[in-house]
Amino acid sequence: MMPTPVDLLIEARWIIPVEPADTTLEHHAVAVHNGRIVAVLPTAEARLRYTAAETVSLPEHILTPGLINLHCHAAMTLMRGLADDLPLMRWLQEAIWPTEARHASTAFVRDGSLLAAAEMLRGGITTCNDMYFYPEATAEAFDRVGLRAVLGITIIEFPSQYASDADDYLHKGLATFDAWRDHPLIRFALAPHAPYTVADATLERIGSLADELELPIHIHIHETAQEVEDSLRTCGQRPITRLETLGLLGPNLIGVHAVHLNDGDIERLALHGCAVAHCPTSNMKLASGAAPVARLLDKGLNVGLGTDGAASNNRLDLFREMQQASLLAKLSTGDATALPAHRALRMATLDGARALGLDHEIGSIATGKAADLCAVHIADPDALPCFHPVSHLIHVLGRHDVSDVWVAGQQRLQGGRLLQITNTELLSTARLWQNRLRQ
Amino acid sequence: MMPTPVDLLIEARWIIPVEPADTTLEHHAVAVHNGRIVAVLPTAEARLRYTAAETVSLPEHILTPGLINLHCHAAMTLMRGLADDLPLMRWLQEAIWPTEARHASTAFVRDGSLLAAAEMLRGGITTCNDMYFYPEATAEAFDRVGLRAVLGITIIEFPSQYASDADDYLHKGLATFDAWRDHPLIRFALAPHAPYTVADATLERIGSLADELELPIHIHIHETAQEVEDSLRTCGQRPITRLETLGLLGPNLIGVHAVHLNDGDIERLALHGCAVAHCPTSNMKLASGAAPVARLLDKGLNVGLGTDGAASNNRLDLFREMQQASLLAKLSTGDATALPAHRALRMATLDGARALGLDHEIGSIATGKAADLCAVHIADPDALPCFHPVSHLIHVLGRHDVSDVWVAGQQRLQGGRLLQITNTELLSTARLWQNRLRQ
Repeated sequence: MMPTPVDLLIEARWIIPVEPADTTLEHHAVAVHNGRIVAVLPTAEARLRYTAAETVSLPEHILTPGLINLHCHAAMTLMRGLADDLPLMRWLQEAIWPTEARHASTAFVRDGSLLAAAEMLRGGITTCNDMYFYPEATAEAFDRVGLRAVLGITIIEFPSQYASDADDYLHKGLATFDAWRDHPLIRFALAPHAPYTVADATLERIGSLADELELPIHIHIHETAQEVEDSLRTCGQRPITRLETLGLLGPNLIGVHAVHLNDGDIERLALHGCAVAHCPTSNMKLASGAAPVARLLDKGLNVGLGTDGAASNNRLDLFREMQQASLLAKLSTGDATALPAHRALRMATLDGARALGLDHEIGSIATGKAADLCAVHIADPDALPCFHPVSHLIHVLGRHDVSDVWVAGQQRLQGGRLLQITNTELLSTARLWQNRLRQ
Repeated sequence: MMPTPVDLLIEARWIIPVEPADTTLEHHAVAVHNGRIVAVLPTAEARLRYTAAETVSLPEHILTPGLINLHCHAAMTLMRGLADDLPLMRWLQEAIWPTEARHASTAFVRDGSLLAAAEMLRGGITTCNDMYFYPEATAEAFDRVGLRAVLGITIIEFPSQYASDADDYLHKGLATFDAWRDHPLIRFALAPHAPYTVADATLERIGSLADELELPIHIHIHETAQEVEDSLRTCGQRPITRLETLGLLGPNLIGVHAVHLNDGDIERLALHGCAVAHCPTSNMKLASGAAPVARLLDKGLNVGLGTDGAASNNRLDLFREMQQASLLAKLSTGDATALPAHRALRMATLDGARALGLDHEIGSIATGKAADLCAVHIADPDALPCFHPVSHLIHVLGRHDVSDVWVAGQQRLQGGRLLQITNTELLSTARLWQNRLRQ
């Protein structure tokens, strides 16, 4: 049998494919052709079966699917750590909103999103589900460094530099959606900010549009106890009940945070097959609480992981979120076996893909899927000994150990260095905005 | 005026001295002579006033006191990640204790402690309060790389490879204490493992010895709910009450974990001026719970931070613990202003020093103290922009950003590289034990 030509063969010490579940392959290889995974097989066999234009050897590495950040506000990277140790409403009213009012612009969003995309790729994130104003600027930035994305057509009732009212947000967002719809890596979601900032009529329209255009809905829900109380007072309903009444709950809905849930809320989310974007660090830092992840999983809900924006985390680092999700689940349940390592990795990969309706395309290292891959190097003495690679991924290693990243078979990070952009440019961009925001 | 000669002048973009509290100095320098800090002053003034044998420039760095790890089992680094996602008793009975029974030896402890010391120094830790068998082997390892330490004279009623009974543990530990008592960086504590593993008579003897020899007492307390229940059943007292009855509570007592405390326990600890070693990651990972740190601080208790051992954390990383302590305090209290950044840094430095009775010597960048220092480089685009350096220390930066470390004025880490030991040696040591333990 003649060997089959392929573009790329990646030979790794360990591969954790996520599908099949709870599996760690040793001395296996991934064959990639035209941006897709064509085989996952023992390295010795791969060398016989394929002749590769490029072979990458990862002798001390774990290869995983690229990580999927299920909730981010990329542009807010420019406000990293601007106002820490403040409660949510003071944080918003005294720091974030005034800064946005003064500075938000196409340039702000493009530069902030560029820094965020670089940070994410360097940390093994290959897909970002984003929500912010000026999505066209985020699309430009993500396209430049080659990050896969689902961009929010963000809608809020209040005027901003970007748009005057809900109609205007929707109109502008849909124009961006039209302009970018043929891009291979950029997709869109409808992103009404939250139940408390979007009116019934607008939410209903978003529900219909989501069905018509087959788009996910990306929305903050039940982040704080206050939000639920306010909704009961002003609408006589809990926000999730209101969303159900308005026809927004469905398998395409990604509810972000979902911290303050009663049994009825969880039943509703489960009944409609909704997904949840769990953001453990953000929820702890803003003292919002701990999402009842174990109960959500028990009810069969799909839960992915998000970093939230850098103003409230302050790292766009899914390695931290995987560990934090695992630790917080153990703490919340009093059960040290809760959210074990394989499951935490699945939340940050395949479960995020399912939430975005992209699990046919990404989220695991499986034949036919896009080659979105992340290699993690176990090289530091700090990371040894290593008995269980998947456990190390969650509890020992971090984004600094990510060495190589591919998106759709294209290399984005090589030996820890981004290929599409220099550190010099990133540093000067960050410093420019640091000086502007300081004034 | 002629400039005064000093050994070392460190000029930093920012210095967070911890004393005075809540202070970030810009463009300041630390003058060091004979291992001690002789001045902290504006860099421009320092250049006029001192002539230094060596000047180190840290133009993009934050200089902090060296971090103090208030609870560690350094040798357990060889069991890093050996058995994750298990409850405490299965973890101990099925993994840790059988491994220790098979492997614990002078060589095991020396090599494990060496890896731990290297990991700690690389991560900005300059003092470790340790508890393990064979403290003479830990002393050797720490001495080799120049880590400051308080080593536990560990006492448990059960036989091990190291000692046959409580008397034997005490006898061997005191012999090590005598052998090392003149070492400038190595000190000792009496370390009865826990109330549930040490008998009344032994605890009383330890209390008298601690008074006589002026040593701290380092003991696990109230880590799990089970431990408290068991004590009520078998002794009719909560462990802290029993320790009080036996005369062990006092300003020299460091209670590790202190998760399950009622109001009476807290009153007792406060009344006797005890200190607590808070280990947030370990407590979350083993599902022990969250120590009531905000309540402890309200009652005026002194709380430092510990990593615990690498088998239950799995990183000896006080940057992680500082962030985790801050996040967990915010989560536990529902107050986003709880444990702000300056306070988290103080827990990992000055408060640890106070717990060890060493605050006259270490824990802050103050004239007269030993020059135990940690420099953190803000160089990655991932860490920018930076508006508040102290907040970045807790929520953005990590141990990978530590560039330089001094202990008693001697440089241990330079540009991220350890000066006393090579990575090659550390890697081969780690791999040797990885192979032995796997068998």
